[in-house]
Amino acid sequence: MPELAYINGRVMPIEDAVVSVEDRGYQFGDAVYEVIASYGGKMFCIKEHFVRLDRSMKELHFPIAQIDEIRRAAVDLFSKAKIERAAVYIQVSRGVSPRNHSFPANIPVQVVMTVRKIEEKNPPIRETGISAITVEDFRWGRCDIKTVQLLPNVLAKQKALEAGCFDAIFVSKDGIVREGSSSNLFILSGGMLITHPLTPDILPGITRSLVIDICREKEYPVQERFFDKSELYEAVEVFLTGTITEVLPVVKIDGRPVGNGKVGPVARMFQEGLLVRLKNE
Amino acid sequence: MPELAYINGRVMPIEDAVVSVEDRGYQFGDAVYEVIASYGGKMFCIKEHFVRLDRSMKELHFPIAQIDEIRRAAVDLFSKAKIERAAVYIQVSRGVSPRNHSFPANIPVQVVMTVRKIEEKNPPIRETGISAITVEDFRWGRCDIKTVQLLPNVLAKQKALEAGCFDAIFVSKDGIVREGSSSNLFILSGGMLITHPLTPDILPGITRSLVIDICREKEYPVQERFFDKSELYEAVEVFLTGTITEVLPVVKIDGRPVGNGKVGPVARMFQEGLLVRLKNE
Repeated sequence: MPELAYINGRVMPIEDAVVSVEDRGYQFGDAVYEVIASYGGKMFCIKEHFVRLDRSMKELHFPIAQIDEIRRAAVDLFSKAKIERAAVYIQVSRGVSPRNHSFPANIPVQVVMTVRKIEEKNPPIRETGISAITVEDFRWGRCDIKTVQLLPNVLAKQKALEAGCFDAIFVSKDGIVREGSSSNLFILSGGMLITHPLTPDILPGITRSLVIDICREKEYPVQERFFDKSELYEAVEVFLTGTITEVLPVVKIDGRPVGNGKVGPVARMFQEGLLVRLKNE
Repeated sequence: MPELAYINGRVMPIEDAVVSVEDRGYQFGDAVYEVIASYGGKMFCIKEHFVRLDRSMKELHFPIAQIDEIRRAAVDLFSKAKIERAAVYIQVSRGVSPRNHSFPANIPVQVVMTVRKIEEKNPPIRETGISAITVEDFRWGRCDIKTVQLLPNVLAKQKALEAGCFDAIFVSKDGIVREGSSSNLFILSGGMLITHPLTPDILPGITRSLVIDICREKEYPVQERFFDKSELYEAVEVFLTGTITEVLPVVKIDGRPVGNGKVGPVARMFQEGLLVRLKNE
């Protein structure tokens, strides 16, 4: 079960996977990415991830990339790696060119992938729930594009860890609650699930979208609308969603217990709903 | 006169300079950089650039790096390359580690450098002046740290080029004029040079600081204060400053002429003042 990498058609061990120092992903963060999780040897939500990757590239005016070819290469790499529970990381940069802010002409995009084993946390945080802090959202204005402009996310996550918490929740200057450092956020308030609407300020998460689908199926009330920090603090339940995160209950925020401070039944219901989706895909 | 690269102590042609795909600079933009220009075979403002690089690393809580060693390596690489008029690019990332937002423990920073020839633009844009557009500032909240979170700068620069202009000027949502896409900005208004004060919203530019020094020497009135787009439009002269940019007059903004639409005497004065500095360092 080897962990593998891929660069523009070539497959190799991750240790041997290198890119030019003049890759625009390295010098400008001029790159987009996806992370796809596998369960029981099967990649989950492949289609949705490649639709989003394609959109990310188009939003940044990347030269036309063969998205179907990238997809085939990802599936192929994953099957070569033979890892049941893997994270397939796919990064596409605008290419390699001497450093210059403007788009280089006539160079191909650079496609890089890795397949790594997912190590589950122990104790299982999805059972116990996690603590979070809130931090001011100081990211750039296009968080809807899944780019590697991730330094603010890195700094927020690290700040949370140093505060003894698992994650950070971004809150805008004027108090609007956005999302986690690498996940979307739902709150249960007034008997209804609420999450930030799709705007340039948050990632259009695939697990976020699955949770909303599950709501519709189960006729569970859900709203995509803005809510502020006081509504977050007063929520009965809070959970994060993401490809690796799945549905992750938050039981403490800024030192205050969420609801009764324990993982709630609604988070459990959506954890199970996601599990059913995983099995049936 | 070979163009050269350096990675963690090794010198090589730029084509051979590669980093791991799991360099945090590549996957998170978790890296800082400097560009130093040389004139007549001498690197300019070395000390100032390394003071800033050191500060950038500290602001991001990089593991302690031997800044003097990096400096010696940069000077050494530059002298090996034997290029009279060069851009020495220095990038330091948090290191190489399997992808995970939080800071990795106990790994060294990764130091990458390139030395490339500077090609002067023809016709010389410092003589003719340039046109610019204004764009909304959608960068992250720590533009005072010189990181590779540069995708908004890339997009702004490209937008300017596609509008037939040379550069873009970032203006905050509430109308405050910040700086260029890779330069600081000065305006001449009310007989006084005015530039944005040092806040997290702009880069503490070394040429910006030189221009302010020259003002003090010449007893030319200068103010570091906020100003808005209408004051920009009404300015008698406007110029950009930067290491590669030097002092670059802006003669048209959003299609309107700046002053009489020609390069003004104050910009010329500071171009000459900078030249004197270059010769005397």
